[in-house]
Amino acid sequence: MSPKIPKTMKALVLEEFGKPVQLKEIPVPKPRYNEVLIKIEYAPLNPMDLSFLKGSYSSVKKLPVTPGFEGSGTVVASGGGLYGWSLIGKRVAVYVQRSPHGCYAEYAVTNAFQCITVPETVSFENAASGLVNPLTVVMMHKKTLKKKAKAIISNPGASAVGRMIYRYFTANGIKVINIVRRQEQVDLLKKEENAEYVLNSSDPNFQKDLNQLSKKLGATVSFDAVGGSLCAVILNNMPDGSSTYVYGNLSMKNSEASQNDLIFKHKKIKGFWLVDWMKKTSVLENYFLSKKLGSMYNNIMATSFARKYPLNQIEEACRFYLKNMTEGKILLSPSAIEISEINDKKINEQCAQQIQPRL
Amino acid sequence: MSPKIPKTMKALVLEEFGKPVQLKEIPVPKPRYNEVLIKIEYAPLNPMDLSFLKGSYSSVKKLPVTPGFEGSGTVVASGGGLYGWSLIGKRVAVYVQRSPHGCYAEYAVTNAFQCITVPETVSFENAASGLVNPLTVVMMHKKTLKKKAKAIISNPGASAVGRMIYRYFTANGIKVINIVRRQEQVDLLKKEENAEYVLNSSDPNFQKDLNQLSKKLGATVSFDAVGGSLCAVILNNMPDGSSTYVYGNLSMKNSEASQNDLIFKHKKIKGFWLVDWMKKTSVLENYFLSKKLGSMYNNIMATSFARKYPLNQIEEACRFYLKNMTEGKILLSPSAIEISEINDKKINEQCAQQIQPRL
Repeated sequence: MSPKIPKTMKALVLEEFGKPVQLKEIPVPKPRYNEVLIKIEYAPLNPMDLSFLKGSYSSVKKLPVTPGFEGSGTVVASGGGLYGWSLIGKRVAVYVQRSPHGCYAEYAVTNAFQCITVPETVSFENAASGLVNPLTVVMMHKKTLKKKAKAIISNPGASAVGRMIYRYFTANGIKVINIVRRQEQVDLLKKEENAEYVLNSSDPNFQKDLNQLSKKLGATVSFDAVGGSLCAVILNNMPDGSSTYVYGNLSMKNSEASQNDLIFKHKKIKGFWLVDWMKKTSVLENYFLSKKLGSMYNNIMATSFARKYPLNQIEEACRFYLKNMTEGKILLSPSAIEISEINDKKINEQCAQQIQPRL
Repeated sequence: MSPKIPKTMKALVLEEFGKPVQLKEIPVPKPRYNEVLIKIEYAPLNPMDLSFLKGSYSSVKKLPVTPGFEGSGTVVASGGGLYGWSLIGKRVAVYVQRSPHGCYAEYAVTNAFQCITVPETVSFENAASGLVNPLTVVMMHKKTLKKKAKAIISNPGASAVGRMIYRYFTANGIKVINIVRRQEQVDLLKKEENAEYVLNSSDPNFQKDLNQLSKKLGATVSFDAVGGSLCAVILNNMPDGSSTYVYGNLSMKNSEASQNDLIFKHKKIKGFWLVDWMKKTSVLENYFLSKKLGSMYNNIMATSFARKYPLNQIEEACRFYLKNMTEGKILLSPSAIEISEINDKKINEQCAQQIQPRL
């Protein structure tokens, strides 16, 4: 290991699911073969992190553990293996799938193939949400191609993932009908993303408009992270044989579908999970895919951020995040001393200029 | 044609979807090649008939039409073809899929292969619901074998189809967890069907009991005609990877499933429609299948009936049926002059003696 690496570090440690995490001084972990050590700059709070902390996420790690599934930073050491060695000194976005040394710490350990190198033009902030959401969107696009849909419906259209879906699909020639629930969100998507199809579910003509538009564009696939009865309304207004893929639960209500659609219209409602799709993709394919992503963090795969929090204020960060989910992601920063706002207006302007949707 | 067949007949005629049907005197239809003419004794009101009358059923026939998808009677003429000819004089249960001459009339026309001959020991009443429900149950069993489930969950367990499901699956070595919502229904299924596993969804321990039982028995498939949140509760208490097949909509609410089950537990919720399954089955297979059914109408495939109505009282019959769906099926009879009760207690007693569930 390089001499610059200290012996101990600050890290959040979870000792019992559902209990508060503790900020501790613990030994800097040593990467094993094919693993790398990353000096962390930023790590976002994702819904999957919140579920993990409560113990309700699908994959449970052995305790004690440092949480934080993804983040950004610089590779400072390798545990062996050519690819890991080649990453030393590189700026990366990382995903910590199995290792107990997650991103809510000064240093994290993960498999070298779960690092994406990012160009100098991409800030560590913009690289921090570099894997979970962008890969989800890429896998959704693969699913859509497999289903031969000419257009998709995306609900909610104005969330971080919703906006990535819009940009990535549009840039790849697939039209997107964005569903939002407030007029401000219609205006936002039209102005900032140059979106052509935005429907407000609170509009009295919503169902009629959706029905016509989905038939006109051939939107036979929808991606839904809202759930509840709106999920059934959307599927009901799609062509016969359409499929809804559920990837989240923002309404905290069950996903719904009408029996008429399920039985007689051959419509389907299914779960969509990144991890399942990753399993179906070869390691090499994933590798080349991830290489493509690094250059997209400033535009197609850009995320809006709201605030930075120091590690010891994670409780407060979670509370703020749960109350203000649409304002942007929350970043934890091992070097931050106090809470600060993040102004990503510049990123969005830059983004809007670079994307020329092919419609 | 035989000289006994009159030139005209009484028939209910639907001239516009959603409008009342009219009792008319119309010409007795002539069967075409491979079709037969049946003198109808009884025809049940099925949910699919009610949907058809409203114009909301999936298959729409050209108007004017005589409704009534199934019934019982005697074949009195053939339009040609060896099999149709062989049926002349036979007592049959029939399904009228495409022909405009349905069973709510003195005579109906259908394809000869949609007739099931029934033995003398089976009354015309018991043969009247001979195809739709029994074939649905047989196709469900095929689906269950394909999914390699050792046990299934059936909701509602106390309906006409629910009881057929219980008897047919049990007789074929697959255990059934029956879901009901009242204590009387628990008692009924235990007493009349000798059912071992009956859970009351109103019971405070329902979820815990269902969870344990479904895991113990390996119930990885459920058939649901209720919908609503109970549908999600049942799926939630089944093993990972389980599937719910939706075949009805008694609660008039959407079918629900939790995102956690759909995304992370790989559980599925799908529509199940007899017609889709029939299409996947060869004509020959269907033929041999239907030959087996004739002997089951007094026991495994027995239906409970509540009342007989003359044709001209169909409006009143529909009203009664919608209010009293669990009391038993309603039969329309071209020869009936007034409404009468049907006492099928004897059938049930006979049935309970004949079925010895292999548990």
